[in-house]
Amino acid sequence: MDEYLKLLREIIAIRSVSTDASYQTEIHKAVKWYKELLSRAGAEVEIISGYDNPFVIAKFLVDKSLSTCLVYGHYDVQPANIDEGWTSEPFSLRIDDQRVYARGVVDNKGQALIHIYSVIRAFRENKLSKNVVFLLEGNEETGSPALPRFIKDKSKLLKADLALISDGEIVGSTPVIEAGFRGGFNSTLQVKTADLDLHSGIYGGTAPNAAHELITILTKLIDAKTYKVNIPGFYEDVDTITDDQLKNNKSIPFNSKDYKDISGIKVILNEEYDVYTQTGLLPSVQITGISSGYNGQGYRNGIPAVASAKINFSTCKITIGAKKLQNSSENLLIRLNQVMLRSIYKSTILMKE
Amino acid sequence: MDEYLKLLREIIAIRSVSTDASYQTEIHKAVKWYKELLSRAGAEVEIISGYDNPFVIAKFLVDKSLSTCLVYGHYDVQPANIDEGWTSEPFSLRIDDQRVYARGVVDNKGQALIHIYSVIRAFRENKLSKNVVFLLEGNEETGSPALPRFIKDKSKLLKADLALISDGEIVGSTPVIEAGFRGGFNSTLQVKTADLDLHSGIYGGTAPNAAHELITILTKLIDAKTYKVNIPGFYEDVDTITDDQLKNNKSIPFNSKDYKDISGIKVILNEEYDVYTQTGLLPSVQITGISSGYNGQGYRNGIPAVASAKINFSTCKITIGAKKLQNSSENLLIRLNQVMLRSIYKSTILMKE
Repeated sequence: MDEYLKLLREIIAIRSVSTDASYQTEIHKAVKWYKELLSRAGAEVEIISGYDNPFVIAKFLVDKSLSTCLVYGHYDVQPANIDEGWTSEPFSLRIDDQRVYARGVVDNKGQALIHIYSVIRAFRENKLSKNVVFLLEGNEETGSPALPRFIKDKSKLLKADLALISDGEIVGSTPVIEAGFRGGFNSTLQVKTADLDLHSGIYGGTAPNAAHELITILTKLIDAKTYKVNIPGFYEDVDTITDDQLKNNKSIPFNSKDYKDISGIKVILNEEYDVYTQTGLLPSVQITGISSGYNGQGYRNGIPAVASAKINFSTCKITIGAKKLQNSSENLLIRLNQVMLRSIYKSTILMKE
Repeated sequence: MDEYLKLLREIIAIRSVSTDASYQTEIHKAVKWYKELLSRAGAEVEIISGYDNPFVIAKFLVDKSLSTCLVYGHYDVQPANIDEGWTSEPFSLRIDDQRVYARGVVDNKGQALIHIYSVIRAFRENKLSKNVVFLLEGNEETGSPALPRFIKDKSKLLKADLALISDGEIVGSTPVIEAGFRGGFNSTLQVKTADLDLHSGIYGGTAPNAAHELITILTKLIDAKTYKVNIPGFYEDVDTITDDQLKNNKSIPFNSKDYKDISGIKVILNEEYDVYTQTGLLPSVQITGISSGYNGQGYRNGIPAVASAKINFSTCKITIGAKKLQNSSENLLIRLNQVMLRSIYKSTILMKE
């Protein structure tokens, strides 16, 4: 346990954030860390570049006649800043009453390392009874855009009898087999109403305000009460939810008190569906970032000229594309076109299904 | 002209932002700069502390029997960052085709320096025919909260036959006498829906999103089309606008093409009133900042737990207080109370009237 925690502490401290290019040094530091750990333990390690952030492949070969298990994990994490509600520095492992806290502990450095460490120990003690191949990637948090191509190109290298995904959930203390996740993509919507921020005293009341215009669009796109998407066609391609699925999901133990306590939320939205159906079988849309004007200390009384929002769409069929959403939502923006609009939809992927 | 521009270049380079405490060193640098300039020119200079940022008083006394003119200006500026649409570094004077550009050039270092420099030259050449007292403050951009008390305490020091405000406007090339400005105050509205940002895949659809909740409140507070305030009572205490005022304002030359060209706006809102009536006699409300979630490079698919907006209210009677708005707007937030709300109204009140 001590040895595992020592390793976890090391890898947690590496800020391997994949969405922001300024963390590239940390991404490469993480790759080096896994390479050294796995090589030292006796694995054949290969670092494969040319597919966004490097892939790490590590083979523990016991006997070619035995079957092989492929284990998938990812070493990249989402950004994290202590200001955002963390009770301690997110890139420093904190152990408190048998729980460990840090960015990446549950997504996914912690679980992947459990599998890596268990295999290392079994291999060291000659107790490994199958061959094990680890596949670690560094772009899971940006949607694994190169993974399908990588798997196709490297199919020989990845050949296995069984694949295990380290990156999964547990319901309470019940292990689960996950059949799939929602797909998704991200968009940025930017509104520009003037060449630069204008004096609120001199222009206030006559000049359009980018923040006002942006939130007007957003509240048209997303129903305020149900959080449902008001874009024509958005729900058209959604898979039908069967009675069996609903019945099955309802039978999964769910503790709404724990769910609220852990997250700090006061209500669960859309209670007509159980949480597993809502988060697993229905699409959702989330504003993941919004920014306009001055947000520093004190006040700057300018009318913002630019406002932008990052929007995440979780869909249930990858046929719902960015283009469709773009076309539909631009129809809502007729008024905005009068005041100058920049609508930038950046579609990244769609993968998990 | 060269000497004036040299001085303007120096004072522009001092980042005397009053709203953000981290600029205090620059505030004191500006005070020192004026003190040295005015002392060197032969004025009796006094720096008065104890009223927020220091006041600078400088007296050019020609003859006690002559009348005295008091000139007001301010040395503080609003924050500025090149990212926000500036075509060059805002704290560095740029001269381009007979125009000068920089933060503070028109609000208010430029005009105040025109008056200071003109008086310095006249004094130097023995051409000053009246006594002149300069009063420079460093909290105009945060609403001059200490100015009324300062004027009361220091009335003897400020005694004058005539007061000139350096900080004013020109309509086209026509000088104007301004009878007053709207008052105003700033508020911060913060919504909290969870203890920390939640995974959009695991919680998306069941957990409330602070950004969605905030924009829902904001669109309830402010009409999307007219930008009018939907807070009961907000317009109750507004001064009546007389037909004479409307007639007078309509007679002021106004060039809507220039107004649009200079600001880059495409439409002028609320065209039922002329621009001077709208910006001078009617209240307005502006979101001056909004922030939630992740706004860095790329995407972080978290459901924001916290969202906040800075709101500027320009009112026409100071009797409309922050408290009243707070009470009224909280009534709109009943739904929000179910999901946890933090409403922080910071009133800084104000005075210009």
